[in-house]
Amino acid sequence: MSHVVVPAEPLGRLSDSWRHCVGTGRLNLALRADYQESLALVQRDVGFRYIRGHGLLSDDMGVLRVSQGETRYSFTYLDQVFDRFLELGVRPFVELGFMPTALASGEDTVFWWKGNITPPRDHGEWAALVRAVVAHLVDRYGLDEVRTWPIEVWNEPNLVNFWKDADQDAYFRLYETTARVIKDVDAGLRVGGPAISPGSDEWWAPFAEFVTARDVPVDFVSRHAYTSGPAQHVPFGTYQTLQPPRSLLEQFEAPRRHLAGTALAGLPVHITEFNTSYRPDNPIHDTAYNAAYLAPVLTGGTDLVDSYSYWTFCDVFEEENVPTSLFHGGFGLLTHRQLPKPTYHLYAFMARMGAHVLARGEDHLVCRDDDGRVTVLAWQPVGGTDEPGAPERHAVRLSVPVPGERAFTRRERVNEHDGNAFAAWRELGRPRSPGRRELEVLRDCARPAVEHRAHAVAGGRVELDLALSRHEVTFVEVLPVRPEEHPGLDDRRLLGGSDDRLVAGRPVPGTA
Amino acid sequence: MSHVVVPAEPLGRLSDSWRHCVGTGRLNLALRADYQESLALVQRDVGFRYIRGHGLLSDDMGVLRVSQGETRYSFTYLDQVFDRFLELGVRPFVELGFMPTALASGEDTVFWWKGNITPPRDHGEWAALVRAVVAHLVDRYGLDEVRTWPIEVWNEPNLVNFWKDADQDAYFRLYETTARVIKDVDAGLRVGGPAISPGSDEWWAPFAEFVTARDVPVDFVSRHAYTSGPAQHVPFGTYQTLQPPRSLLEQFEAPRRHLAGTALAGLPVHITEFNTSYRPDNPIHDTAYNAAYLAPVLTGGTDLVDSYSYWTFCDVFEEENVPTSLFHGGFGLLTHRQLPKPTYHLYAFMARMGAHVLARGEDHLVCRDDDGRVTVLAWQPVGGTDEPGAPERHAVRLSVPVPGERAFTRRERVNEHDGNAFAAWRELGRPRSPGRRELEVLRDCARPAVEHRAHAVAGGRVELDLALSRHEVTFVEVLPVRPEEHPGLDDRRLLGGSDDRLVAGRPVPGTA
Amino acid sequence: MSHVVVPAEPLGRLSDSWRHCVGTGRLNLALRADYQESLALVQRDVGFRYIRGHGLLSDDMGVLRVSQGETRYSFTYLDQVFDRFLELGVRPFVELGFMPTALASGEDTVFWWKGNITPPRDHGEWAALVRAVVAHLVDRYGLDEVRTWPIEVWNEPNLVNFWKDADQDAYFRLYETTARVIKDVDAGLRVGGPAISPGSDEWWAPFAEFVTARDVPVDFVSRHAYTSGPAQHVPFGTYQTLQPPRSLLEQFEAPRRHLAGTALAGLPVHITEFNTSYRPDNPIHDTAYNAAYLAPVLTGGTDLVDSYSYWTFCDVFEEENVPTSLFHGGFGLLTHRQLPKPTYHLYAFMARMGAHVLARGEDHLVCRDDDGRVTVLAWQPVGGTDEPGAPERHAVRLSVPVPGERAFTRRERVNEHDGNAFAAWRELGRPRSPGRRELEVLRDCARPAVEHRAHAVAGGRVELDLALSRHEVTFVEVLPVRPEEHPGLDDRRLLGGSDDRLVAGRPVPGTA
Amino acid sequence: MSHVVVPAEPLGRLSDSWRHCVGTGRLNLALRADYQESLALVQRDVGFRYIRGHGLLSDDMGVLRVSQGETRYSFTYLDQVFDRFLELGVRPFVELGFMPTALASGEDTVFWWKGNITPPRDHGEWAALVRAVVAHLVDRYGLDEVRTWPIEVWNEPNLVNFWKDADQDAYFRLYETTARVIKDVDAGLRVGGPAISPGSDEWWAPFAEFVTARDVPVDFVSRHAYTSGPAQHVPFGTYQTLQPPRSLLEQFEAPRRHLAGTALAGLPVHITEFNTSYRPDNPIHDTAYNAAYLAPVLTGGTDLVDSYSYWTFCDVFEEENVPTSLFHGGFGLLTHRQLPKPTYHLYAFMARMGAHVLARGEDHLVCRDDDGRVTVLAWQPVGGTDEPGAPERHAVRLSVPVPGERAFTRRERVNEHDGNAFAAWRELGRPRSPGRRELEVLRDCARPAVEHRAHAVAGGRVELDLALSRHEVTFVEVLPVRPEEHPGLDDRRLLGGSDDRLVAGRPVPGTA
Repeated sequence: MSHVVVPAEPLGRLSDSWRHCVGTGRLNLALRADYQESLALVQRDVGFRYIRGHGLLSDDMGVLRVSQGETRYSFTYLDQVFDRFLELGVRPFVELGFMPTALASGEDTVFWWKGNITPPRDHGEWAALVRAVVAHLVDRYGLDEVRTWPIEVWNEPNLVNFWKDADQDAYFRLYETTARVIKDVDAGLRVGGPAISPGSDEWWAPFAEFVTARDVPVDFVSRHAYTSGPAQHVPFGTYQTLQPPRSLLEQFEAPRRHLAGTALAGLPVHITEFNTSYRPDNPIHDTAYNAAYLAPVLTGGTDLVDSYSYWTFCDVFEEENVPTSLFHGGFGLLTHRQLPKPTYHLYAFMARMGAHVLARGEDHLVCRDDDGRVTVLAWQPVGGTDEPGAPERHAVRLSVPVPGERAFTRRERVNEHDGNAFAAWRELGRPRSPGRRELEVLRDCARPAVEHRAHAVAGGRVELDLALSRHEVTFVEVLPVRPEEHPGLDDRRLLGGSDDRLVAGRPVPGTA
Repeated sequence: MSHVVVPAEPLGRLSDSWRHCVGTGRLNLALRADYQESLALVQRDVGFRYIRGHGLLSDDMGVLRVSQGETRYSFTYLDQVFDRFLELGVRPFVELGFMPTALASGEDTVFWWKGNITPPRDHGEWAALVRAVVAHLVDRYGLDEVRTWPIEVWNEPNLVNFWKDADQDAYFRLYETTARVIKDVDAGLRVGGPAISPGSDEWWAPFAEFVTARDVPVDFVSRHAYTSGPAQHVPFGTYQTLQPPRSLLEQFEAPRRHLAGTALAGLPVHITEFNTSYRPDNPIHDTAYNAAYLAPVLTGGTDLVDSYSYWTFCDVFEEENVPTSLFHGGFGLLTHRQLPKPTYHLYAFMARMGAHVLARGEDHLVCRDDDGRVTVLAWQPVGGTDEPGAPERHAVRLSVPVPGERAFTRRERVNEHDGNAFAAWRELGRPRSPGRRELEVLRDCARPAVEHRAHAVAGGRVELDLALSRHEVTFVEVLPVRPEEHPGLDDRRLLGGSDDRLVAGRPVPGTA
Repeated sequence: MSHVVVPAEPLGRLSDSWRHCVGTGRLNLALRADYQESLALVQRDVGFRYIRGHGLLSDDMGVLRVSQGETRYSFTYLDQVFDRFLELGVRPFVELGFMPTALASGEDTVFWWKGNITPPRDHGEWAALVRAVVAHLVDRYGLDEVRTWPIEVWNEPNLVNFWKDADQDAYFRLYETTARVIKDVDAGLRVGGPAISPGSDEWWAPFAEFVTARDVPVDFVSRHAYTSGPAQHVPFGTYQTLQPPRSLLEQFEAPRRHLAGTALAGLPVHITEFNTSYRPDNPIHDTAYNAAYLAPVLTGGTDLVDSYSYWTFCDVFEEENVPTSLFHGGFGLLTHRQLPKPTYHLYAFMARMGAHVLARGEDHLVCRDDDGRVTVLAWQPVGGTDEPGAPERHAVRLSVPVPGERAFTRRERVNEHDGNAFAAWRELGRPRSPGRRELEVLRDCARPAVEHRAHAVAGGRVELDLALSRHEVTFVEVLPVRPEEHPGLDDRRLLGGSDDRLVAGRPVPGTA
Repeated sequence: MSHVVVPAEPLGRLSDSWRHCVGTGRLNLALRADYQESLALVQRDVGFRYIRGHGLLSDDMGVLRVSQGETRYSFTYLDQVFDRFLELGVRPFVELGFMPTALASGEDTVFWWKGNITPPRDHGEWAALVRAVVAHLVDRYGLDEVRTWPIEVWNEPNLVNFWKDADQDAYFRLYETTARVIKDVDAGLRVGGPAISPGSDEWWAPFAEFVTARDVPVDFVSRHAYTSGPAQHVPFGTYQTLQPPRSLLEQFEAPRRHLAGTALAGLPVHITEFNTSYRPDNPIHDTAYNAAYLAPVLTGGTDLVDSYSYWTFCDVFEEENVPTSLFHGGFGLLTHRQLPKPTYHLYAFMARMGAHVLARGEDHLVCRDDDGRVTVLAWQPVGGTDEPGAPERHAVRLSVPVPGERAFTRRERVNEHDGNAFAAWRELGRPRSPGRRELEVLRDCARPAVEHRAHAVAGGRVELDLALSRHEVTFVEVLPVRPEEHPGLDDRRLLGGSDDRLVAGRPVPGTA
């Protein structure tokens, strides 16, 4: 354990890139009540700016409909979904895909819900569809609004399961058709790609060359980032190895590195999906380990890219069929019945950090607001599969600058016991579809543990000795205190009411 | 127009069979927010007791799941749906079907959403599935509760599109397996069938013989009722002819008629689906005509059967793909954005009728509560395709018994203009996916027109002269008045406040 | 009836002064649930910017407390009230008064709730109190926020019932002390007065001279406006005569007229109270007459002053003791149980007017939004006590400019029958404390009647022939229609569904 | 510490008398939003059956109104209050008092809000008032309902501050008039008294003699119970000594003891007020000490009387003027801004106890539900002023019977740190009117700490070793576990996911 003396002068503002975007299951699922309740919670506690998911053009959204030979572009569901997003304070990060069956050149599909992954059988019809969709959005939501929505062309075209034969030429052609028709609707709309998966950096050069050579519009570039190894399947689940957290940050940086010197250098970079495991049935997502692992990623990525979008905000997700158990290793920050997982709390803690960064370290981030409030995010570093397991305790010691003579701290803890619904669920015998009483228990156990205490400020500083449990992520808020005690007060006359611990200048060993 | 003197003595209580059950789109749709909002509205204004829909066992409910060779019965979604039904005050009328793909003997499907309609490939596995489902329901909701839930075996097995080859023997075998395993879970559970479509009364005799001969349990019988002719398709829509309303009542009565003399005589009869048209894209469902047509059916069927279940409570329904327009001829009492259709108001009016029936006629029903409140439902009779069109006006004149010296009436009107969102939508140019402002307009125009006035009671009676517009359904509530005017009051001194019309004994010609 | 051809070019923007402020019963009442529910409704439908009421410093707010000789400035209730105002989207228009008993120089009080109206017994203590209150507001709500809150010194000091002996010198002294201490807290705060009642214009000159001579800060001036004559009391009620509506507008203009040429010329003018009658037990406030009377005032005053504040938004008000009846002549736009009165609808109609004024007349105001939506407010002119009673009908004929080929109109009507809970309540026998059923009836009858129809646009215009009933205020919204009918549609094939009236170019005589 | 082996057979059902009734500030305060929000919380978490407060007939309820010589009984506010109580699931325990000024024989008042405590100047008018009120209640709420509402005559007539001269004869006369007129409205209504304060047992004999001799109706008897000594005033507060908790139970038993052998023996006994201190400004009410002190009273009184009504459910209360600070020693279970105090949690814990009592002890109560769920309430015993202070720790060791092989426990803790908003508030510097951020902190710190773990059931029992902190009240819920682990599961393969502590039969030392 080291002792960090946090400087009183800020390093700069805390960027919002960590919550610029979040991922979601296919857009049809956004019609569901549990999805919407989950999103409302996430928006209350985190406040993402954009949301991105697959399936905007898939059959279950009913955008392209044919009846008795007549074709209709139809927005019954799309409007319902986007209306609701905006009501909940989040904007669409539009992903154009997959292919409507009526326009597909083949029958290959991805996922349990069968998204068609083949190119359009006719580029003119595809262009007409894209034009109809984008023009409708502009008509309904206004040009000023839709110009703020990034539009990404397809998803992971470098993988055969997402794009027929992973055909690069075919993708570039699709990209060109799409980008041109979007700009034709309005030149101020923003389009980008290539939305590639990890391990495909060889796509950057040809993509840059293609768009440059043909002068194809591109307003941002995008890729995905995951650190898990091959899937080890068991019934209804998967285990995987994990690389260390820094690998995620390296993946974030890759586009800038690969595009340096090209015409695309300097474009905004969006990591349009990231997580530890890319599997929706790996229980790692449910754990405190996941939160501790991602803490340095969330705090460390803020200045590397324009966004990195956690895949996904809730477990309402059906790529691998309907989940058979409340906890099932889903990507979600929230489970089906809206239980927050440890990683949810990590995000909620980040959302409460102050505006200015005072210090960053391998196990902490310290921020401050203009009114003197100091916030600390601290965690136990974990290293992935090849590093030794985390010990039972981790100590973080910080000297933080606070104005005035007294201070109050509230600390919230998430670890293998506290704020950990997954732990309680395992103790409850892993009930696959819990009843009302069990859900209440789990909801209660999902709340971070809270500690609080008074501090004397000495020399303009408060000393925080934070003892973290295994895989803990902890949030501390330090509030300057303006005492309002009055002369008549004498709590020694109150039965059982000794007041010693509150006296300024006499902090007690204990809690926080 | 005739003048009906309503008797002061009741004919009997108004039975609840008209709202015993209501239909719904496939159960997976019950996860949706708009579905649940619609159901909440319907329950507030109508208060159905049970709800019945297809697809409990279809793949998108995830009840039967296989992974790496391991089979699981899973209730992630089913519990969510039934929990919500019960929270909204409505119980499941369980329909067992369609076939999970993993258990199907073939690949034939029905509907856009591809419900598998083939028999189980193994009756033992089917029985195991049914046992698991029913036992789970008993475990989660309690035996006392689940004993009140009717369980119906399959849907319209007499039609080739719902049951492979409409194979009667195969259905009877399925029925027997299912009924026996249900009773094996608990003998007090209630099972029934054969859920046949209109025009298949030849199934009654063999069904009765089969269950009698083999002593197969049967607690109720069920069938469906519709009065529409062949579909005349246009793009995104269908027109059809209609038989007269009395045809529905005849269909209601058919099971009792056909089962007279068999061992099944006297069993409860449930009409588990009924409507004018059986097509989810026939605009008749959106009209005031539909409400006027069904008024004598709702009021006339109460003593004929144990339930008749309107198909369906809302337009969230996908049997013919995703609707492409707000109004599209869907079955619903409510549209997608929760606009009430005229038939919704008919149901809501029925829900406000008094407890005791005073009079029934071809264009009216009069009820009374114990506290003297009298309610009237009146309508313009319409006759279906082969009868002449309804005139512009229809008069209903009733003399109703009211205690005391004064009365107040509130009248609500639904017709081609009032309480008619469809009419306003057509005037608005039929916007397929209306924006916020248009939805507000439509919501406003969907409310019944309200009229009110004071009456002097003469000879214990109030005279109601009701002038109905075209296709009108009207509701009148007559409240006895206990005046609380006091001596100091003199509204002639109030600017513009002449009070003449309120003086007892001096009714004014006018409104109600 | 004249025929007005509404110009297509706007006269200017519709100012917000009509909803800049609204009055309320004493601030302690703001703690009540019914008050807050009423305010939430008003804010949803009208959206006032500020709210002003008496009693901020009266004992029941507990701001100045003394215990065992120790003095405390206490904000337990004040913070609760102002927090809630801001949550509901309305800001305080602060009125400093009445005198805390502990600081009063006498025992004279006003109202049933006994507001002390005597000067402070010590100006230093008064200044300390004002300083404490204002500094607390700045501390809690922020300086930027509080600088937008006008602070008015006392209420109607020219009347003996509101200010001991109506002593002008004493008021000027109070004003000076108060204004100086406020500016001492922050020079950017805004202070004003003299908050005089109608009929006291002789105060303007001395007030201007006083503040000019002594260089006392003044950021705005204020007065009240009412048009009722002497009270004619009956048990639990009052009748009064009324001057014509233009008298209110003349009162609005008076301050500018009287201050012309003084140093106060050009200051903002706030009419911090206005209404027809100044009595909280005059039934005129409950009537459609009141709405028709005020329509030309609301529409005509927008450019005369910076605000005119309707006294008051709801009937939760106790100046003349606890009301003994639901309708009792209270000032409120809403009754105790949140029934909207006709004048509520007038305000709600105004809130839906477009941004730009196209035409103003003695019986109409026409506005338009940038998207082509046209709105009309029309009313039957009424003249007060000395003018003849209004006839049964009033016709307004307008030719309004509309883009495109078709249009839709929705009309809402409030008159002696429609949108008139008071009329229904009288018909119900004036139940003083209605039960649940009666309240539902009244709520239903309180809604404006709605009419709608399609129009063909001819020559860029739609002709509106509006037939108004007695004391009617009517709102019409004209929406340009973009038809989405499709070729397959043929509603002649729909039973009872003749579509003639919807055909463009063939409008039908009728409804709107 | 002893080790208690809890029997597997119940001693009997847990009576509801502990939550039969709760006290409230004067009824006019029930109109307030914060009051209603507080009551909704209390009803959600505790679920009281009845609620009792002063001031039903005081002027601010406006029940008796006179205008221009005309008298009205008016229910504008009373109906609003009682309607809301019933909506929130709690019934009125009616207390008739204080005297309307218009009917009073003198000017003596009690409390800051000036309840008039003098006898009626005319018993006929008093009888008319009571008759009007009771008849109105029967008319509005129905006879069946109102027959369940106890009606108590006046409050603490044995004290000079509550009843002019504490005149016993005058009270008996009032009681007789009141009881007779109530029975005259309906013989099934229930009336009682004498609502005496502690230390006045000399009233029982004369009361029994009076009603017996004159055959005056009496359906129940009532008194109050407090254990505090004389008030030691400081500015804005009071300190007092306390007798031991058993003194409260002795006061509960007193009526039965004193009435034994009289005609009133066997009547229901209601303790219509109880608490530690009778002062609304004694900080003891805010403490964990108060909860620990009352735990044996709540658990020990259930079979002694028919109800004991905690005075009061929330701090919305003005007997000693408007509170000047969030925490101010008010009676409430909840503070003004709806923060739960430790005693709130005690009540909420009681509400979650099982139906059957398994064991009672000096530091615990153990209950069980029919489904095997076991609940424990445990506390550190405290003794009042004359006993030594409580030590830092208190251990409770229980062996509880649980079916099956595994169990889960959730424990909630309230003590000097956990679930203790008052402690956090003191650390925050006692902010008198906290802002939004501080309120959020306090709300967070007001939640009980939660612990959970798995247990192996050995010999049908789980061992609970509960280490309690100072002044702790703790709640434990033991749930039998039906494990649903499946063979494919191997959390050792999950990073950081060692599963050892969950294995049945291998409990870990630790938490619960």
